[in-house]
Amino acid sequence: MTDVKHMKWWGWGVDGVAFHHENKPGFAPFLKRAVGVDLSIPTEVTAKAFEDIDVPASRASESFMAELTAIVGDSYLTVNDMDRVIHTFGKSIRDLIRVRAGDLARVPDLVIYPADEAEVQSIVDAAVAANAVIIPFGGGSNIVGALEPLRDEERTVISLDLGRLNRVLDIDEGSGLARIQAGAQGPDLEAELEKAGWTIGHFPDSFTHSTVGGWVATRSSGMQSDKYGDIADITKGLRVVRPGNVLVIRAIPSASTGPSVREMILGSEGRLGVITEVTVQVHRIPEKREILAYLFPNFEAGLKAMHDISESDATPSVTRVSDGNETIFSFATSKASKGLSSLVTKGLGVFLKSKGWDTNKMCLSFIGNEGSPDHVSRNQKIIASIVKKHGGLGIGKGPGVLYDQKKFDTPYIRDFFLDFGGSADVSETAAPWSKLFPLYTNVMAAANKAFDEIGVQGWIMNHMSHSYSSGACLYFTFAFVSTGDPIKQYDVVKSAIQQAFIDNDATISHHHGVGLEHAPWLEQDISTAGVSVMQGLFDAVDPKGNFNPGKIILGQTSRVPAEPLV
Amino acid sequence: MTDVKHMKWWGWGVDGVAFHHENKPGFAPFLKRAVGVDLSIPTEVTAKAFEDIDVPASRASESFMAELTAIVGDSYLTVNDMDRVIHTFGKSIRDLIRVRAGDLARVPDLVIYPADEAEVQSIVDAAVAANAVIIPFGGGSNIVGALEPLRDEERTVISLDLGRLNRVLDIDEGSGLARIQAGAQGPDLEAELEKAGWTIGHFPDSFTHSTVGGWVATRSSGMQSDKYGDIADITKGLRVVRPGNVLVIRAIPSASTGPSVREMILGSEGRLGVITEVTVQVHRIPEKREILAYLFPNFEAGLKAMHDISESDATPSVTRVSDGNETIFSFATSKASKGLSSLVTKGLGVFLKSKGWDTNKMCLSFIGNEGSPDHVSRNQKIIASIVKKHGGLGIGKGPGVLYDQKKFDTPYIRDFFLDFGGSADVSETAAPWSKLFPLYTNVMAAANKAFDEIGVQGWIMNHMSHSYSSGACLYFTFAFVSTGDPIKQYDVVKSAIQQAFIDNDATISHHHGVGLEHAPWLEQDISTAGVSVMQGLFDAVDPKGNFNPGKIILGQTSRVPAEPLV
Repeated sequence: MTDVKHMKWWGWGVDGVAFHHENKPGFAPFLKRAVGVDLSIPTEVTAKAFEDIDVPASRASESFMAELTAIVGDSYLTVNDMDRVIHTFGKSIRDLIRVRAGDLARVPDLVIYPADEAEVQSIVDAAVAANAVIIPFGGGSNIVGALEPLRDEERTVISLDLGRLNRVLDIDEGSGLARIQAGAQGPDLEAELEKAGWTIGHFPDSFTHSTVGGWVATRSSGMQSDKYGDIADITKGLRVVRPGNVLVIRAIPSASTGPSVREMILGSEGRLGVITEVTVQVHRIPEKREILAYLFPNFEAGLKAMHDISESDATPSVTRVSDGNETIFSFATSKASKGLSSLVTKGLGVFLKSKGWDTNKMCLSFIGNEGSPDHVSRNQKIIASIVKKHGGLGIGKGPGVLYDQKKFDTPYIRDFFLDFGGSADVSETAAPWSKLFPLYTNVMAAANKAFDEIGVQGWIMNHMSHSYSSGACLYFTFAFVSTGDPIKQYDVVKSAIQQAFIDNDATISHHHGVGLEHAPWLEQDISTAGVSVMQGLFDAVDPKGNFNPGKIILGQTSRVPAEPLV
Repeated sequence: MTDVKHMKWWGWGVDGVAFHHENKPGFAPFLKRAVGVDLSIPTEVTAKAFEDIDVPASRASESFMAELTAIVGDSYLTVNDMDRVIHTFGKSIRDLIRVRAGDLARVPDLVIYPADEAEVQSIVDAAVAANAVIIPFGGGSNIVGALEPLRDEERTVISLDLGRLNRVLDIDEGSGLARIQAGAQGPDLEAELEKAGWTIGHFPDSFTHSTVGGWVATRSSGMQSDKYGDIADITKGLRVVRPGNVLVIRAIPSASTGPSVREMILGSEGRLGVITEVTVQVHRIPEKREILAYLFPNFEAGLKAMHDISESDATPSVTRVSDGNETIFSFATSKASKGLSSLVTKGLGVFLKSKGWDTNKMCLSFIGNEGSPDHVSRNQKIIASIVKKHGGLGIGKGPGVLYDQKKFDTPYIRDFFLDFGGSADVSETAAPWSKLFPLYTNVMAAANKAFDEIGVQGWIMNHMSHSYSSGACLYFTFAFVSTGDPIKQYDVVKSAIQQAFIDNDATISHHHGVGLEHAPWLEQDISTAGVSVMQGLFDAVDPKGNFNPGKIILGQTSRVPAEPLV
């Protein structure tokens, strides 16, 4: 009925794209060693067939459906089971475990696809008048539970899919400002911009399946944020449909017009209205882009180098360093003939051991630069000298090229792992430079303690990315094969990590948002008074709780585990 | 009683510092030509002596005063007339005209000087319990009416002076984060930072008489914002006393924790609580800082050059270009023997005329760079080539050094002019690059039309500063000698300029805030829905309007002219 693209209902990405390990000889031994999974033993696919899933029927009334259908037309409102299930969750491990098991607590009653902002306005007004719930839906890549209806929601739940608002409307070439409809997905909008010689410079890991409206609603950050900024920096103008009218933030470079309404919409996760249009800063496609790879003898040395780079005159686009575990993982997921693995076969390992390195602790780093060739080479020279100071080693362009090509593929590995009963997910945070290394060691310890508590062989790895003057993001990926209830066990590990963030002067999320997943820690992050100010805002502008209620601040939700988290 | 520093009650800065024109031979002829003032004719000083001013008595009850005195001690609560008058206004032209005329509508009933955050908390709790009004006071440099009590305020008005909270508490040397008490003034905190080798990099024109808490409450921007960012970027952590508890935003480099509470406090002008502490990003003092001067044949060429620089690989700290009028003013306020004037006597004017330039239209520009000497010279090379492309001309270091020394002195000229019956004030805005030149010409036209309407010989001049990727700030200064009610005439000109901002896709303020002065245009700037969201926030978190009521959003104020503005 619509040509709006969606990911598959049971996992990341589109049908026909999947992770394969056969051409990666290091992967099977790595997996055995890390989490005890033997890939040579065939496993049953645990996911149910869609036909075997019991999808709760839509509770939308005939009259309300008729009212909404009159707005968008017959083809753009559906109560089809598959559509509703696709719009029930995002793509966190909790989401995938539940949907594969057919554990669908509360499914949206209908999915609606407005054609334009005027239709969004009509839907919003009708929904508020009927006291229905509106959950805006972009690419569906959210991993913090921001998309799911509350378990005990008794009102009609509308999943408002922005997929038809997918155009780049205008580029102000004289200012580098592009007006883009909220439902435009990453690759589509970037292709439109590229045609005119521009780039948005925003490439989150979800890029291939997320939308500009979703980035704004989540406070997303892309891997080139060192140069282009987070989406909060990139977003200059906004249009947000509110009951009765459209909130318009014009594209102003900077303003002192009171508390920033723009910064209230950013990160609002659907609670303040429906974002329909975003005006973003775009940039001329740089003459040269180059990501170089480096190795450091240990993570602390890598962090120190990244900090020094952030204080230097160099202005890189990407600074990233993996810890020893993630470096092992990167080698294990490389093809035999290319990139990292070939480096090893070329004897790099032998060379490093001769230098006294522990190759199980060495840390892979990627640093990108963009601009004129002269600018890029000058930055690389400054960076090379800092890397050397911290005992690091440049290993050239090859791994950087591969990283750039493969950067969006990691979620497919997670789905592959899920077929073997494995749970893998991520927790990311940010903290000041001085706190990063203790934060890292304490989070690793907390996760390993949690693995012990639930009696699993767990794996946790990390990279630092997104440098700022005052600090950076740490991004943890953890995995284990459940020995009991996979969601309960996941909660133990996830909770231990999130609490360690708080206890080590770090935030509960750098760029994934709050949703339901991180909400239990919000008060510890922004203080009781901070939550009360935010709650005041939500209550004032959405008194009946029609806009994605219960997200960010708990209280209206029943999805949070009834049992206390460990 | 306290050693908290304040500016003089009738003007900018401290006693004994004033503008003198005797050593600036171009000034008197300029003033005659620009606004018709003949400095050779002695003028009466129009300001009343303080003794002749009728200061309304304090309305604070004995019991409430006793309650507050118990918190801070006898020495730190005052109802003294001079103290209360100093705390009645900021330093806008409207403020100075009124205070010099003894037009004091509503003076704070008491001024209180808490020693620390705990005392602020006690004062806030007592004030809210008594339904009093709290107006936080920093350096008193505000020029948008954010400090004055509402004319018809019947409750007790407390001016809460943060002057004793003036210390740099801590520097996290490993992250470049300094915890500073809200009442610390620019020069004091910078001196403390400098001792340890750091700089805040935030130098607004008000720097010598403003505080870090005031910068945050106003959304200030400093002249080196191109490199260091606006105060919104520099501010990482906050402590804000709210009724019953302290709102704490920890110093996190970037976070996705819902609508940004940090960005609600920024620009809140006292309406959300009392800011007691700010954690700011600081930077190592650069090895080299250099501001070079350039001339452009006209303003449009200068704007184009600044835009090209913002798109280049250069990363300057300051980009600034004056229009023809402001360039004339700069020459007229230069000493005979130094800087700009000496350039002219050296025959620059003759040279430029020989190149076909109209020296009445040429535009003075300052561009600053910081970092290693190599970085500075490389940036200067990129910039020189862009300047040349747009027909500009480098004129060396001398004027830049003078600009750097004199940059904080302009308000003294305004006070000097006031002694001759002259009104001078500023209006600043920001807009996308593509809109700047039409904005400029339309604002100039609107102001000149307003001068005609009120029948005065007016002067308006402008500079562009604060470059961003998508646009920049335009800063207008206007002056005239009133022929009637000076405030009514000022309102005509000011209104024409502010409305021209709105009509030309620009904001009502880039870095001076909203207060009462810009509030009539807020709805046109951030939309009806935007104002309603902000009003919802204020109503929810301050239901009785105890915190600086009526500012930013009109409605609780009677100070706005009863007659409609032109």
